[in-house]
Amino acid sequence: MNYEDLLKNQETLDPNDWNNIRALGHQMVDDMIDYLQGLRQQPVWQKPTETTKTHLNQPLPQEGQRAEDVYQEFLTHILPFNKGNIHPRFFSWVQGNGTPFGMLADMLASGMNPNTTIGDHAAMYVEKQVVDWAKEIFGFPKEASGLLVSGATMANLTALTVARNALQDLQIRKNGTQNNLVLYCSAETHICVIKATEVLGIGSNRTRIVPVNDQFQIEISALTNMIEADLAAGFRPFCVVGNAGTVNTGAIDPLEDIYQFCQQYGLWFHIDGAFGSLAKLAPEYTEKLKTIEKADSLAFDFHKWLHVPYESACVLVRDKSLHQAAFASVPNYLTAHERGLAAGPEPLTNYGIELSRSFKALKVWMSLKEHGIQKYARLVRQNLAQAQFLAQKVSENPSLELLVPVSMNIVCFRFNDGIHSEEALNQLNKEILMRLHESGVAAPSYTLIQGKYAIRANITNHRTRTEDLELMLHKIMDIAASLVVQVVDFDTNNPLHYQAFKTINYAWIEKHFTIEKGDVDSLENPVKYFINTGGAVLLACRENEIIGTSALKPIGDNTFELCKMGVSESARGLGIGALIGHAAIKRAKALGAKKLYLETNSGLTPALNLYQKLGFLKVENFTSPYQRADVAMEMHL
Amino acid sequence: MNYEDLLKNQETLDPNDWNNIRALGHQMVDDMIDYLQGLRQQPVWQKPTETTKTHLNQPLPQEGQRAEDVYQEFLTHILPFNKGNIHPRFFSWVQGNGTPFGMLADMLASGMNPNTTIGDHAAMYVEKQVVDWAKEIFGFPKEASGLLVSGATMANLTALTVARNALQDLQIRKNGTQNNLVLYCSAETHICVIKATEVLGIGSNRTRIVPVNDQFQIEISALTNMIEADLAAGFRPFCVVGNAGTVNTGAIDPLEDIYQFCQQYGLWFHIDGAFGSLAKLAPEYTEKLKTIEKADSLAFDFHKWLHVPYESACVLVRDKSLHQAAFASVPNYLTAHERGLAAGPEPLTNYGIELSRSFKALKVWMSLKEHGIQKYARLVRQNLAQAQFLAQKVSENPSLELLVPVSMNIVCFRFNDGIHSEEALNQLNKEILMRLHESGVAAPSYTLIQGKYAIRANITNHRTRTEDLELMLHKIMDIAASLVVQVVDFDTNNPLHYQAFKTINYAWIEKHFTIEKGDVDSLENPVKYFINTGGAVLLACRENEIIGTSALKPIGDNTFELCKMGVSESARGLGIGALIGHAAIKRAKALGAKKLYLETNSGLTPALNLYQKLGFLKVENFTSPYQRADVAMEMHL
Repeated sequence: MNYEDLLKNQETLDPNDWNNIRALGHQMVDDMIDYLQGLRQQPVWQKPTETTKTHLNQPLPQEGQRAEDVYQEFLTHILPFNKGNIHPRFFSWVQGNGTPFGMLADMLASGMNPNTTIGDHAAMYVEKQVVDWAKEIFGFPKEASGLLVSGATMANLTALTVARNALQDLQIRKNGTQNNLVLYCSAETHICVIKATEVLGIGSNRTRIVPVNDQFQIEISALTNMIEADLAAGFRPFCVVGNAGTVNTGAIDPLEDIYQFCQQYGLWFHIDGAFGSLAKLAPEYTEKLKTIEKADSLAFDFHKWLHVPYESACVLVRDKSLHQAAFASVPNYLTAHERGLAAGPEPLTNYGIELSRSFKALKVWMSLKEHGIQKYARLVRQNLAQAQFLAQKVSENPSLELLVPVSMNIVCFRFNDGIHSEEALNQLNKEILMRLHESGVAAPSYTLIQGKYAIRANITNHRTRTEDLELMLHKIMDIAASLVVQVVDFDTNNPLHYQAFKTINYAWIEKHFTIEKGDVDSLENPVKYFINTGGAVLLACRENEIIGTSALKPIGDNTFELCKMGVSESARGLGIGALIGHAAIKRAKALGAKKLYLETNSGLTPALNLYQKLGFLKVENFTSPYQRADVAMEMHL
Repeated sequence: MNYEDLLKNQETLDPNDWNNIRALGHQMVDDMIDYLQGLRQQPVWQKPTETTKTHLNQPLPQEGQRAEDVYQEFLTHILPFNKGNIHPRFFSWVQGNGTPFGMLADMLASGMNPNTTIGDHAAMYVEKQVVDWAKEIFGFPKEASGLLVSGATMANLTALTVARNALQDLQIRKNGTQNNLVLYCSAETHICVIKATEVLGIGSNRTRIVPVNDQFQIEISALTNMIEADLAAGFRPFCVVGNAGTVNTGAIDPLEDIYQFCQQYGLWFHIDGAFGSLAKLAPEYTEKLKTIEKADSLAFDFHKWLHVPYESACVLVRDKSLHQAAFASVPNYLTAHERGLAAGPEPLTNYGIELSRSFKALKVWMSLKEHGIQKYARLVRQNLAQAQFLAQKVSENPSLELLVPVSMNIVCFRFNDGIHSEEALNQLNKEILMRLHESGVAAPSYTLIQGKYAIRANITNHRTRTEDLELMLHKIMDIAASLVVQVVDFDTNNPLHYQAFKTINYAWIEKHFTIEKGDVDSLENPVKYFINTGGAVLLACRENEIIGTSALKPIGDNTFELCKMGVSESARGLGIGALIGHAAIKRAKALGAKKLYLETNSGLTPALNLYQKLGFLKVENFTSPYQRADVAMEMHL
């Protein structure tokens, strides 16, 4: 290498023109403040376009481009397709909003850009300050230790590493994980706890999933049975993870009972309090969450219910020496000095896995100072009240169903007008949610509650107002109205009804068979053939479109024939057949029928299944004017 | 909870006055741009004051304060005490500088604040784009997978989790880590690899530390011996970690040899290329680092040599399916949909530990677009050339010593004027480094190279210019001059010399004994007593202060007496005695002496040890005019 030549034109990544980057910075501040200020008028979410996806799938840039142009690409392709968790009507996964001041704090931290791990510099003291405040919030002792990490997953992993390594006789850092260690957590525990045990070499097979009660809380009796069985089988239980707010339903495990249990069996008591532990700030939950003070370790997020921007979470450990013993080690180049840059507070690597750490403490520090903990407490409480408000509105609406009692800030509900099957309701609510997202009006998420597809509104949102919740419910009702299938009587004055009755039935008959004389007679003259004979024609409609048909014809002896059951191709699989079948049975009863009769074909398996489900049984001997009829069924009403 | 009351005055964390936060944002942009633009004129580092430490140690804020006031506290107590790794003369730990545009990108990311894990939104596509670019940089196949993580520690942990879980027969996610797994890495490997094996439950006892050659590279022969022994003993080797640039000296392991070795034994080949892998961008290293293309996994940082702000690192894995198999799992609330917010690309949790992830891809994307990879390549090369330049300057200076040949961008050297003992040099160079830091002029770090305290200048700095390196060396020489003890002849015209010769000697004699006639005679008249008799008086000086004395007096028979050896109280323990002793011996030879003689006292243990070290041996029979003299020693020259 001829280094002298190379050094003739030394370059830098700094801008050639500082005024340029300064002006761009001002532009960005204006744009982002406008963006945040105007959120409520913007869609919560919109789908990234194909153009944008293509733009974000290019080869590695060889040459640079002007900073302004890169920023324009950001404005065109990135900002409009934001996830939306900053929006007042984002109610999906438990995620915080961030704040404008937090955003600016992140700029300051990134400009300073200190690797916050070792050394005698401000970031180290700010981090210590923030961890001390966390201890104060949760009533952890002053001597406890802690660390800022990316999220609760890392906080849980860090705490469980300490819990595992605290089995001092095993010297796990040296010897590796023993294969008889067992950890316990409820079935509602966040998946990241399982992930942590997998990473730690404990294994999911030795992570005991304890059943929950109908409040989704861990069953202490089941836990006791499990540990006794494990002890008898030679396993070594070492930890119970309790939930302070499960992600699914916001359930809080009986923490005091778990604490007593851990005391009794000599186990580490870790609490995953990712978001829910902060409910401790609200008077309603202070007592319920008081046991957090006694836990061996706690994981929680600043970026969820305290709305510090991502990433900012924290792990607290009661016994500082065990925390250090799990992670501390000092190679040559990290040996502390008494003076100079490399002196200063204890290296933060002594308390966690990471060595490269950004100055995430700054945004936490600035945010807590900006608002004070009392305001955060009021806002947590405001979300709890808003969840009650939403649940109340759901309960008051006869077409909505609350699926679980509200726990904390999570409301799981669905549209249910009482006429759909469970399967249809699941499909319907999923479609409602998709359309709600696509409308950009609101973004709750979903979960399954005992097999039921639930719209899940999680309110960890400092921007939400009650009118946002009402707007979401109105939109859900609008969408449902446009999706729900209604069964109506044939309107003899509506030419569309004549048309649809023919089209739908000719279509399925022609697809499988050939048109017969009886088809033509009845389909061309439904009024004469069904209605004027004392029968009926029923149509399934959705958004002014007719998608299903059936007809009833009296055939004597208090018996009606059910016929011309058809569903348009585009509406198959949505349970329309069952819907209109039920409606026809109901109508037949109303018309005084004691028995229903029908003819069909043995090749039409879905139809046969449907009829069986409706209650029809096969008739052995029959004659029919239709060639395709090789099966007859009847049903006593 | 009476939620209706609670909802009467709904609050938010957003500002009451948006114009206020907007103005503050503009102020911050101006201040930070000024700060970055003026870095070269600022100290690299200054020690946080006690006032600041006190300010950063306060109880949790109960009430909020004005955002402007919080910002003022930032300006007063945080910004001035930055770590300094953004400064042109920061040469400590391998850390990047960041850039102004990167800082602004972090503001945008924090304002958008998406949790970048799941969902159909821009951040997911940007992350994929950036990982694709990383594959392109390192020649990984298109089908490979990757993930952005905080730093190389997390990247190494993630890769080693995949390596461990790739032992498919063991089903480690379910069954836990087996206790016979063995991993290999060189003695120069970063401590985070050991930390990873500890976390993973493998244990440091089964992390084989392979010796290095004199280039600090792994010894393949030793590796072979170790694995054969392990196989014979029933262990299960599964992985070798190779270094593409060790943190200590920048050494690159023989990657191709390790690759072949791994092929032969069927082992996972992981490369820790935290910063050094990026040297691949420089033509000088392209060939040497070509094997990276064949590795099973790679860890590297964007925040080091590419100067994207913290945190931004990346892990690449050749076999995507093994990567997924190590981490993927899907609970109810994360089930993907085909439409809506929750659809979109594959969840990123399938590729790593974290679930909460900020939009760190944005600053990488914007930075790579701003500069293009070719500019980064030139800057990497510029640092390599600067390291050569620095080494050359060190070599040219007779008082500086290069301790290791330069590998890549790391220069380990020390001040060595050839007259100090190794112990004294270690103390001296440590003091030089501390004072250099305290001066704020430059901040290299330090390491031990075979027991020698080395000033370690690591140049991963886009702001460094050669004049910064020269400035650092000049300052080192200035500090050394102020610290180094020089031995000078007694100046008969300098009253300070008369004074110091008396003061230093009276002090030690009075401390241990009483003043005798011979003391007064010689100390009051050194010229007459020593110099005019053909002897000499030598003084040790540091920064114009005299701190040590010795005298030589001819006593006949080509013999000189060494006497009046004294070191001032404040300069004890720095090897001054040895320094002046060596100088006196040298002078005696120059004066034609064949033998040196001295008298001392058996209670003066440090003095006796020093004389023995200098080469003096005890004389059995002697007489002395001094009462305190109960030991006599002599040395043949």
